[in-house]
Amino acid sequence: MSNQVEIILSPLLLPIYELTGKSVVVIDILRATSTICAALHNGAASVIPVVSTEEALSFSNKDYLIAGEREGMKAPGFDFGNSPSEYATDVVKGKTIVLTTTNGTKCIQASKEADEILVGSFFNITVLADYLNNQNNDIILFCSGWKDKVNLEDTAYAGCLAELLNAKQQSDCDSLELARDLYRQSLPNTMEYLRKASHAKRFSRLGNNEDLELCLKHDIHPVIPKFNGGRLVDIL
Amino acid sequence: MSNQVEIILSPLLLPIYELTGKSVVVIDILRATSTICAALHNGAASVIPVVSTEEALSFSNKDYLIAGEREGMKAPGFDFGNSPSEYATDVVKGKTIVLTTTNGTKCIQASKEADEILVGSFFNITVLADYLNNQNNDIILFCSGWKDKVNLEDTAYAGCLAELLNAKQQSDCDSLELARDLYRQSLPNTMEYLRKASHAKRFSRLGNNEDLELCLKHDIHPVIPKFNGGRLVDIL
Repeated sequence: MSNQVEIILSPLLLPIYELTGKSVVVIDILRATSTICAALHNGAASVIPVVSTEEALSFSNKDYLIAGEREGMKAPGFDFGNSPSEYATDVVKGKTIVLTTTNGTKCIQASKEADEILVGSFFNITVLADYLNNQNNDIILFCSGWKDKVNLEDTAYAGCLAELLNAKQQSDCDSLELARDLYRQSLPNTMEYLRKASHAKRFSRLGNNEDLELCLKHDIHPVIPKFNGGRLVDIL
Repeated sequence: MSNQVEIILSPLLLPIYELTGKSVVVIDILRATSTICAALHNGAASVIPVVSTEEALSFSNKDYLIAGEREGMKAPGFDFGNSPSEYATDVVKGKTIVLTTTNGTKCIQASKEADEILVGSFFNITVLADYLNNQNNDIILFCSGWKDKVNLEDTAYAGCLAELLNAKQQSDCDSLELARDLYRQSLPNTMEYLRKASHAKRFSRLGNNEDLELCLKHDIHPVIPKFNGGRLVDIL
């Protein structure tokens, strides 16, 4: 049973939280952390999250697949964009993927003071909750947001995950209450609820009508991506 | 009719919002902005918001009342704390009040790039909404939070005020959706809902069982406090 749960709603709020000794779950539902779960579950050896497209391109050789997006679209010169649907087994099996995205990858890099950095999405929510409930660290659910703004989908996911956590001690974290209430309000149809999210509208403008539905599927990629030595690997 | 409405959920998120040319409503329901409305409606000539207790004490002479709190309690050497109930007509009439609080007063000072800075609370919500609906600026609802953390009461108030605003143009602001949904979820009894807020629990620990109920009363102090030349005055 974990001790206490807190939620960070935006990367700009990170400085007011203490990460030392805690388990941090980085959340970027649309789509970095969903993509990481899909890639690892489909057989990728590891995912290296990097902050800039330049750093990602510095890995360009046959040993790596270079992936990522800027403004929701595949970045120039990259092998893949940031849709989990691109990361099929026949493409990623055994490969190391270098991933850079607008929001999620920088939050992984920013969490280095934590005892452990994990990656959360609906794809792995149940195994992740079980893992967190079986250790003793305090937990921080860290929402990536969109360009540092609070967003609905990461907040709703944090609320959903928090509902599955058994904390010994109640935290005085209003963001936790807010996220849980938001998630409850999104039921019974979280996808319909999230259509008003700015990110869902952005997808719609880009002609992407599949990824919102895909990224809300529960437990289709049961992995526990943990950041270790600069890479995310599945520790399940 | 205003143009667009956005919500800032914490002072740390201020840098990602553009304030120039906009009307900013500073919100600190428990209790700075409630207190400011009460003081002005009960006849105070003006309120000077200052950031530090030292700055507040530098005004100590018979022309000013020095007011404010730290950690929810009256600061040492001050005439008043930060409960609206202390600001009765016979005490404040004609006086200028120098106010410093943990969260709200610094947000007023931080909003100086805005076209106008107003103060919002449940005490003045209807006249404030009318005022905002009768001008053409974009609107920012700026929640003070608690020590830079997002809090439930300021978020719920922002959602409540947003429900009363007629914007010409929809903004892509997820925080706006989140705040509106939070407020709707708090109905029909916002006070009961807010008992789980960290600030309500803090009040309870300090033996203050009145201010939460008081600060949720609608329209008991119908003023429009506007920041001008370093002071807040009622422009209604």
